[in-house]
Amino acid sequence: MNTLTLSEARALVTAAMAGAGHGPAEADLIADHLIDCELRGLPFGGLARAVSIVERVRTTAEAPQPMRVTAETPVSATLDGGDQVGYLVGMRALELAVAKARAHGMAAVAARNTWYTGMFSYYLEKATAAGFAGMIAGSGPAVVAPHGGTEGRFGTNPIAFGFPATPTPVIWDIGTSTVMYGEVVLKARLGEKLQPGQAYDATGNSTLDPAAALQGAFGVWGGHKGSGLAVVVQLLGMLSGAAADPPGISDCGFFVLLLDPAALTDADDYRRRVTTFTESIRATRPVEGGSGVRVPFDRSAACRAEALRRGTIDVSEPVIAALRKAAHA
Amino acid sequence: MNTLTLSEARALVTAAMAGAGHGPAEADLIADHLIDCELRGLPFGGLARAVSIVERVRTTAEAPQPMRVTAETPVSATLDGGDQVGYLVGMRALELAVAKARAHGMAAVAARNTWYTGMFSYYLEKATAAGFAGMIAGSGPAVVAPHGGTEGRFGTNPIAFGFPATPTPVIWDIGTSTVMYGEVVLKARLGEKLQPGQAYDATGNSTLDPAAALQGAFGVWGGHKGSGLAVVVQLLGMLSGAAADPPGISDCGFFVLLLDPAALTDADDYRRRVTTFTESIRATRPVEGGSGVRVPFDRSAACRAEALRRGTIDVSEPVIAALRKAAHA
Repeated sequence: MNTLTLSEARALVTAAMAGAGHGPAEADLIADHLIDCELRGLPFGGLARAVSIVERVRTTAEAPQPMRVTAETPVSATLDGGDQVGYLVGMRALELAVAKARAHGMAAVAARNTWYTGMFSYYLEKATAAGFAGMIAGSGPAVVAPHGGTEGRFGTNPIAFGFPATPTPVIWDIGTSTVMYGEVVLKARLGEKLQPGQAYDATGNSTLDPAAALQGAFGVWGGHKGSGLAVVVQLLGMLSGAAADPPGISDCGFFVLLLDPAALTDADDYRRRVTTFTESIRATRPVEGGSGVRVPFDRSAACRAEALRRGTIDVSEPVIAALRKAAHA
Repeated sequence: MNTLTLSEARALVTAAMAGAGHGPAEADLIADHLIDCELRGLPFGGLARAVSIVERVRTTAEAPQPMRVTAETPVSATLDGGDQVGYLVGMRALELAVAKARAHGMAAVAARNTWYTGMFSYYLEKATAAGFAGMIAGSGPAVVAPHGGTEGRFGTNPIAFGFPATPTPVIWDIGTSTVMYGEVVLKARLGEKLQPGQAYDATGNSTLDPAAALQGAFGVWGGHKGSGLAVVVQLLGMLSGAAADPPGISDCGFFVLLLDPAALTDADDYRRRVTTFTESIRATRPVEGGSGVRVPFDRSAACRAEALRRGTIDVSEPVIAALRKAAHA
């Protein structure tokens, strides 16, 4: 592991994204998202992801196209991402949704033909800061087996909800698989093993080998209830027109829904009531020997605050080497 | 157990609801919902629930008020349920949402000041039959402890999503607690025990006794991820203005969101793609010794089809006796 200052890390990502063909504004946007992953203790979605972006760009013959809106109403839009990276398509979808929800109280935007949309809490933190409650769901290539099955049928299918509160928003952001795609790729790179029950190989047997899992299927989180949620996320993603099982890393679906609490209730009062509710959750009598009850996003906010105090992140040497190489490609 | 024909069961519920002060149209609406619970193999939400409704009405001093819309935009409405039973308030909320979503492509309706809204899949089956995708979430009295805690902070907080498909819709409908409220009440009535890990008593110790659980708190489903979803449901319910912790069985929040797929994509094509996707899920290679993979709502639809073929349901003698008494009250 090497220790980088935050500005070193940001410069490294920005340079690698420039090497992959992105202009300064796009490179900044991607870097901001990936650095936020690092700050929040999710390194597989951080600088390691930048390496994966560079690889995807290098191995894709056709250049991405400009994004375009293919359907639109006052409260909705459908966005063709043009095979642009999801960090950019997600931000465009969010901007569209914010403008429409600001005007009409709510909005739904569905995007397709994109890949790697990152942490949904990243977008929802911006949405809640603007005063909206929101939901984001994302579908992807069929790498996760439904409950009771051993073949991939849906993506790792993250889903997130966010609500404005003081001082930090409530943001619940989960993957519906037992393990995240980036986590498996990183474990494969580092030669580490998976946990029991996390994956099946191509013949349908349980496996601990990340490489075998990438040829087979990951398990779904939460038994039959969680498996149903994964189906829900896939169907929300498919509202964009995204395929049920796109080839490789492509044509992911991204669905964002924003709601202005003011359409339904007194927005300031709602924020206060949400805040009071989160305080009562944190004050819940803990289980014996327990360390207390957290509200969704508490862990992320604390982890980021600590990383910002420290001013540095730790990044593995192979990741740094790959990004340096990409920056000079 | 006594075996009732479906028309006997329906007549019994309708008469009991009339005895509780409901006119014929309301009594029919409630009976339709409760009978559907029985048909789908959820007896604690069926005729046993009619007994609970009668008890709630008998023990509440103030008569319910007419429902009224307290806030409205072209795509949203907030409904004060006037302490009417949720089976009626939920249907009114659904009708409002359907009319608005038909006109504008999407709608959100939040209701408060109600109780016992039943199976959310009941409403979503109607919404999907009308061509909409939808989500419903409902908050309630603080009877469920957050992950890591032993005191009630939110309701059993059901959440459901529905999508149109052929021949049956996809409807995912779960409670976010380890056990449903009606299930605990029924076990207490019948002298049965809970499963380990399902509940805490009033002092925070694990308990198997349903009566002690009703004085303490139920566990939350799905560890920290499921606990976060329960928080999300509570915050969605609170968009109506419903309290975070209403007293007794009152002021539950009900949030319904409908989306016309035609706003985002070709609706017929979407329905076909959803249907094809469900077929591919059912065809997933099962785990060794497994019985095959189901799609959310498959079990309910099969159970109801079988009950309709049989033409009867089994109901416990004390429930029948209580309803007969209520009918003649």
